[in-house]
Amino acid sequence: MRQRIEHDLLGDLAISADVWYGVQTQRAVNNFAITGIPISHFPELVKALAMVKWAAAKANGDLCLLDKDKVDAIVAACRDICEGHLHDQFVVDVIQGGAGTSTNMNANEVIANLALAKLGFQKGDYRHLHPNDHVNRSQSTNDAYPTAACLAIQFAVDPLIETISSLITAFYKKGTEFKQIVKMGRTQLQDAVPMTLGQEFEAFGVTLGEDISRLREVTALLCEVNLGGTAIGTGINTHPDYANLAVGHLASISGKEMKLAANLVEASSDMGAFVAFSGILKRFAIKLSKIANDLRLLSSGPRTGIGEIKLPPMQPGSSIMPGKVNPVIPEAVNQTAYQVIAGDLAVTLAAESGQLQLNAMEPVIIFNILNSIKMLKETCLMFETRCIQGIQADEERCAYLLNQSIGTITALVPHIGYANASRIAQTALHTGETVRSLVVNEGILSAEELDKLLSPQSMLTPQFLS
Amino acid sequence: MRQRIEHDLLGDLAISADVWYGVQTQRAVNNFAITGIPISHFPELVKALAMVKWAAAKANGDLCLLDKDKVDAIVAACRDICEGHLHDQFVVDVIQGGAGTSTNMNANEVIANLALAKLGFQKGDYRHLHPNDHVNRSQSTNDAYPTAACLAIQFAVDPLIETISSLITAFYKKGTEFKQIVKMGRTQLQDAVPMTLGQEFEAFGVTLGEDISRLREVTALLCEVNLGGTAIGTGINTHPDYANLAVGHLASISGKEMKLAANLVEASSDMGAFVAFSGILKRFAIKLSKIANDLRLLSSGPRTGIGEIKLPPMQPGSSIMPGKVNPVIPEAVNQTAYQVIAGDLAVTLAAESGQLQLNAMEPVIIFNILNSIKMLKETCLMFETRCIQGIQADEERCAYLLNQSIGTITALVPHIGYANASRIAQTALHTGETVRSLVVNEGILSAEELDKLLSPQSMLTPQFLS
Amino acid sequence: MRQRIEHDLLGDLAISADVWYGVQTQRAVNNFAITGIPISHFPELVKALAMVKWAAAKANGDLCLLDKDKVDAIVAACRDICEGHLHDQFVVDVIQGGAGTSTNMNANEVIANLALAKLGFQKGDYRHLHPNDHVNRSQSTNDAYPTAACLAIQFAVDPLIETISSLITAFYKKGTEFKQIVKMGRTQLQDAVPMTLGQEFEAFGVTLGEDISRLREVTALLCEVNLGGTAIGTGINTHPDYANLAVGHLASISGKEMKLAANLVEASSDMGAFVAFSGILKRFAIKLSKIANDLRLLSSGPRTGIGEIKLPPMQPGSSIMPGKVNPVIPEAVNQTAYQVIAGDLAVTLAAESGQLQLNAMEPVIIFNILNSIKMLKETCLMFETRCIQGIQADEERCAYLLNQSIGTITALVPHIGYANASRIAQTALHTGETVRSLVVNEGILSAEELDKLLSPQSMLTPQFLS
Amino acid sequence: MRQRIEHDLLGDLAISADVWYGVQTQRAVNNFAITGIPISHFPELVKALAMVKWAAAKANGDLCLLDKDKVDAIVAACRDICEGHLHDQFVVDVIQGGAGTSTNMNANEVIANLALAKLGFQKGDYRHLHPNDHVNRSQSTNDAYPTAACLAIQFAVDPLIETISSLITAFYKKGTEFKQIVKMGRTQLQDAVPMTLGQEFEAFGVTLGEDISRLREVTALLCEVNLGGTAIGTGINTHPDYANLAVGHLASISGKEMKLAANLVEASSDMGAFVAFSGILKRFAIKLSKIANDLRLLSSGPRTGIGEIKLPPMQPGSSIMPGKVNPVIPEAVNQTAYQVIAGDLAVTLAAESGQLQLNAMEPVIIFNILNSIKMLKETCLMFETRCIQGIQADEERCAYLLNQSIGTITALVPHIGYANASRIAQTALHTGETVRSLVVNEGILSAEELDKLLSPQSMLTPQFLS
Repeated sequence: MRQRIEHDLLGDLAISADVWYGVQTQRAVNNFAITGIPISHFPELVKALAMVKWAAAKANGDLCLLDKDKVDAIVAACRDICEGHLHDQFVVDVIQGGAGTSTNMNANEVIANLALAKLGFQKGDYRHLHPNDHVNRSQSTNDAYPTAACLAIQFAVDPLIETISSLITAFYKKGTEFKQIVKMGRTQLQDAVPMTLGQEFEAFGVTLGEDISRLREVTALLCEVNLGGTAIGTGINTHPDYANLAVGHLASISGKEMKLAANLVEASSDMGAFVAFSGILKRFAIKLSKIANDLRLLSSGPRTGIGEIKLPPMQPGSSIMPGKVNPVIPEAVNQTAYQVIAGDLAVTLAAESGQLQLNAMEPVIIFNILNSIKMLKETCLMFETRCIQGIQADEERCAYLLNQSIGTITALVPHIGYANASRIAQTALHTGETVRSLVVNEGILSAEELDKLLSPQSMLTPQFLS
Repeated sequence: MRQRIEHDLLGDLAISADVWYGVQTQRAVNNFAITGIPISHFPELVKALAMVKWAAAKANGDLCLLDKDKVDAIVAACRDICEGHLHDQFVVDVIQGGAGTSTNMNANEVIANLALAKLGFQKGDYRHLHPNDHVNRSQSTNDAYPTAACLAIQFAVDPLIETISSLITAFYKKGTEFKQIVKMGRTQLQDAVPMTLGQEFEAFGVTLGEDISRLREVTALLCEVNLGGTAIGTGINTHPDYANLAVGHLASISGKEMKLAANLVEASSDMGAFVAFSGILKRFAIKLSKIANDLRLLSSGPRTGIGEIKLPPMQPGSSIMPGKVNPVIPEAVNQTAYQVIAGDLAVTLAAESGQLQLNAMEPVIIFNILNSIKMLKETCLMFETRCIQGIQADEERCAYLLNQSIGTITALVPHIGYANASRIAQTALHTGETVRSLVVNEGILSAEELDKLLSPQSMLTPQFLS
Repeated sequence: MRQRIEHDLLGDLAISADVWYGVQTQRAVNNFAITGIPISHFPELVKALAMVKWAAAKANGDLCLLDKDKVDAIVAACRDICEGHLHDQFVVDVIQGGAGTSTNMNANEVIANLALAKLGFQKGDYRHLHPNDHVNRSQSTNDAYPTAACLAIQFAVDPLIETISSLITAFYKKGTEFKQIVKMGRTQLQDAVPMTLGQEFEAFGVTLGEDISRLREVTALLCEVNLGGTAIGTGINTHPDYANLAVGHLASISGKEMKLAANLVEASSDMGAFVAFSGILKRFAIKLSKIANDLRLLSSGPRTGIGEIKLPPMQPGSSIMPGKVNPVIPEAVNQTAYQVIAGDLAVTLAAESGQLQLNAMEPVIIFNILNSIKMLKETCLMFETRCIQGIQADEERCAYLLNQSIGTITALVPHIGYANASRIAQTALHTGETVRSLVVNEGILSAEELDKLLSPQSMLTPQFLS
Repeated sequence: MRQRIEHDLLGDLAISADVWYGVQTQRAVNNFAITGIPISHFPELVKALAMVKWAAAKANGDLCLLDKDKVDAIVAACRDICEGHLHDQFVVDVIQGGAGTSTNMNANEVIANLALAKLGFQKGDYRHLHPNDHVNRSQSTNDAYPTAACLAIQFAVDPLIETISSLITAFYKKGTEFKQIVKMGRTQLQDAVPMTLGQEFEAFGVTLGEDISRLREVTALLCEVNLGGTAIGTGINTHPDYANLAVGHLASISGKEMKLAANLVEASSDMGAFVAFSGILKRFAIKLSKIANDLRLLSSGPRTGIGEIKLPPMQPGSSIMPGKVNPVIPEAVNQTAYQVIAGDLAVTLAAESGQLQLNAMEPVIIFNILNSIKMLKETCLMFETRCIQGIQADEERCAYLLNQSIGTITALVPHIGYANASRIAQTALHTGETVRSLVVNEGILSAEELDKLLSPQSMLTPQFLS
């Protein structure tokens, strides 16, 4: 393998002549081999890094802090990366010490070498264009990296919101499809009062819809960035106009409403927006898991469970029990949810351990957020297309269970009182007599009154009592 | 002890003649003795329960579903409770099975007995006014209890926000007081570049200020309630106009902007707003803990640590080491933070375990949120008055450390390049020579240029480079 | 209120003349008002503190480092405390800064004042017997406090193990009672193969029995203590024989097998044993929660769920739905479990934040462990007496569901092959025909063979296949 | 791409003719695309699966339940897999619904097709040797899969323990190297009493050594397996002698002390051993993180921190600050720890959600445990070779700080009393005078006595007081 020698403050290091990254990236690759997952696992992050560098170069150019040909070469390199041609050059492990410096240097080096090539120089000939002096000009890892992370999350969240929306639509469709199917509602796993299966599925859609609103709100928090704060937020080594120029360029390049944080010292060490974002991912995961649990309960059986719905069979369920089909898709949804909830704990631990002017643990925070978004996106797609769309109601079973139950007695309370109704309910339960016959036999209400009150349909919404 | 006998579907039970609660509360007391903390530990919850019952009674009165004298008696009872006279009658353990039914019945029974007294009847003579038939009319635990919880949290959050605001003010004051003190900033516990101690303390204020905004946003989510949904959100046993009337009354009684959730079936089982709220409490706890960690670091010493600030001594620090004074207040802040983060996990677990039309684990969710608010409020007060207000800067130490450091070299990078600067920094570190003399001796920059560039003051904000 | 003035390095402080504690305790009370729970909430901790002081006094006496009359007075004071007479004097909040110094000083001061009284002196007249110089002699908070904590947990765990044992017995009794009841087993909420209800309940007992073994193992880790290490484990201010003498006395006074840790520097900052202990409490909580979930599932209904068992009704279940009885006891078990799991997170966070020679967050660690033990003990007692003991099987329902199901087909696989059996299972499911008639009609097996293979009894254990 | 058609109860499916897996694996691949990590990411799991199948085939052979030629072919196939030739055929995502059925079927199908090839048949020609009827004979996923998981963890834990041992050795070596370097100990980040740097590093070794003991204990719990329990632990479709035979074969094939669980119904749904194991991984992670924190503190500087030690520089620390070298390796250790702690939460959530006779969430439990082991192993190796081995002490700095401090006053307490010593300490702190001169000037102790008492060396261990 052909090699070239690069140099940094620790001395010389040989790296493959083919790679576009440089010495500092190589050191990081050697240092960190923990997860085996490179940062390119998250293409949004690579793209966001390139856009930050692009914006910085433009702002430096505006202020005559970088020659036009260097600016042009850097911008061209960043464009190439944004188009996805060099993702495989982003090789540092997602878990890395150094508060993201290795990720930032990976970007600086790849861009520098690409730009050198565009200017007609050899890889590694940094005299003409230097990863730190030019690509990283007016920047520190401590502002460039979290800014890129904020942007990357915004890129990643868009398709997540799309898959959630699509999942919601699937729930609403089932809500409409099951609109007429009256069934027993359950609280605390005990028979409660009637509802429609349509109401149940519609509620799944509604509850996830709220998460889209929450996701949008916390994503907006990530528009505020500390670009221009450099090392600790004081803006050392920047021109007074740089921060606003750079953020302005970033907004137009990315198409996202990026804006400068009000206090850059605060913004440099603050992980609050990431924590809030992760908290909403967790909330969404909790809701998905609850829905998955409900679907597993409602489809339990086929013969000894609730069995009000049938999930589409996706694979044989057992290596020993023939014909068994398990709710594998909701089970996978649960597991994703556990993983996302766990990811939020990693974010929590990392955020709490920030010290003084910086949080050195940013890489693990950003990894967990991007990873959770990715898993949730795949999971929503799977949930929608391999489960929700194919759910069938067992109308007969719904009706059978509803007729069996004595929960309809609740509708009589306003008419015969709670104590009376309790007594009748208990008698019905123990003797097997129907509520109706007990009430009629006791002469408490007439058969006509009962017909009206005990019609399940009349219990599905508020009613004018008479 | 005098006793009276009450009756429910499980039979007769003797309870003390003195107490205002009834049979179902007594059963709950007998059943649950887990934490030893009664629900009255959270007076906001008691008050909120009374207001919900008050609002419901008014709405029932409006719709002629409850006689005027009953409405009046119930309202008068609720007022008494709101004024704080009967908190000791709210005796059920904060951890309880039953999705809050015991808490709701505790309120129904106390109110019923108080109202009976107002109407001239004996305690327990429920023929005249019944806990379920009248106090609980048009309600279920499943709407009344979470509605009360939403309101209680709003009551509790106001004084929390006040103590946070006051804490922020204390940080800002120190920010102003320490405005002129230049010191070394640190990233990853390594010397970085200069900043002022004032910038450091101001940033603490800024970061907590953002949490007030977040707290307000998530508190707003708790304005949406499911009152009127009754058992499962279908509104069984309510008049079509009841829900809006009741929520309207609740808004005027409480002075909070309560409004009806758009989909009551969804709202009945949804814990999303609690999860989001708890997530923001966690975020705030993380930030407090980070600040406490910083203060412990900055005050480390007195002789072998950083020692840039001195915390006010609050108590002798050691039973064996004389004169030792420890940062006990920040340490307590950390511990509160851990407890709040843990509380968020309990909320997460409970929220995920909701099933079908209800989340039976609401009590533990509400307990943890109210408990975390309470602890955070006390902690902020302690932090402000027993620590932050009394912090003193050690100016001499700040200056001494700043002069020792070589981090100022960063300011030369735009002028001499990153590689050059790295080499000089290493030489300075190993030989003990100053950056200044090395640069001058090498003839890279003139003494005048260096004077300008290396003035710490010039590094505190972006500068016009020349 | 009569007051006396005491003095410490921060100056004079007036305290109530009646109290047995002194100035440092009073400062701690003033400083920390976070949870409102005093350390006396855990009587085992108070007793353990007194025993540590007792053991230290004896060792000091052995080495002539303390006069006999002082030793005697201190020992007498400690005995009084162990007998429970002064628990109300242990007033510091369970969450406190200072690594337990306030708790340790609370003990030192109460003991000193009690001992002074025994010697005929006034409270606070520390010239004759001093909280630090005599009661705390040869000790530091940093060894005395964690040693007391280790002992306290051992005291607390005994009654926990007793209640678990008793709960296990209740499960085994039900296992025997339900031995003959054949029912359908379920995996992934889908019908699997037959088992007995007795096997199901016996397994609950077995699984909890393993936790008793684990609890005993981790409790043994807490026998190793750092008494004698003083401030940082180097044993400063102790006689070379002190540590062994003191731990020996502690073992005989407490009746527990206390022994000296091998490396006291390590032992001073190590939280490993607490973390391991808390982890096992969490494991036990997880199992309790799983069992509670199972019981709620199995008793779901009464008409639209599984309904194979009936839990004893403990309280009316609903304020609106008459006759509804909810599984309130298992629900409370779940909530305790969530709280214990959360407590383990607080322990985790606190343990991770130890720094250098000490973990300053010990108080919150010890609080959570003792609190979880307490809640689990109450919960096990409640679970046993208010739920498990009263569970009834619905034999008819078990048999009905078993006969409905087609899971028995599994028994045919070794005879007719997996693919064949799958096909028949699907046909049975879709047509409603029985497995038996399908197999007979296809001529695959004879009626006699089927009788033998399809008898549920034959599926409950391994069988000689023929 | 050539394809072959396979069939299962859901119908026909085309799969690539080249692959060794079959229809059920393909369905699982189509269903689950959540993490993108295939089960082959954990070669120990693949190997363990093959060994379980091998042991089962042998036991079936012993009992004449499988023809010798089939047994031989299966065994040969399993050997091939154990040798690592077919890991790329284990393609199912680590997060998968179905309680591991897909993983089990992936193994069954690969083995069946390999065995078919050995017998001279085509892939997919399952008439001659069937994945379910023969490879999976006498097994269910529900016993084969967790048994394989228990074994896989044992395989994975061996190299982890080796890297931990090696890391411990590195700490001990530094302990010896730094034996003579006296420095100030610190508690609560405040100066405490003297110790040696050697004691500090030795303690790191000691504390991790305890984790090896704990890891061995919890690994032993994983020797107990439920092989032979089949679907729900009742052993349906097994010969009475099968379970013991199979486990015996597994022990000899694997070289691990596998034994049969006492109660297979319990063992089928019990996740206790996994929870306990994960808890110990978490404990170890907590300790690693605490040590990493300590090293970052002790090496803080180079000029404005503690600076008692120097970590080997591994990479340039900053993209903007020249010469800055950060503690990147300890920072990566912290981040691994957060990830492992988070993984334990995923295990907790999954374990708690088990239902009735099985825990459907086993895949996510096993994934997290194997993943944490893997990350910890890499992290220990990195920590040892890229950090600990290269740590250098700054003796001068240690001595300088020690001499500055007044913590030595503690040694005077037994001689001059706590109150006296406190007063002197405060004077020394405020005036800058030394403890020594203050004591001499006050005439409390003679210069000779002080020489003896205040020698740091005399404070490093217990001393005979005189």
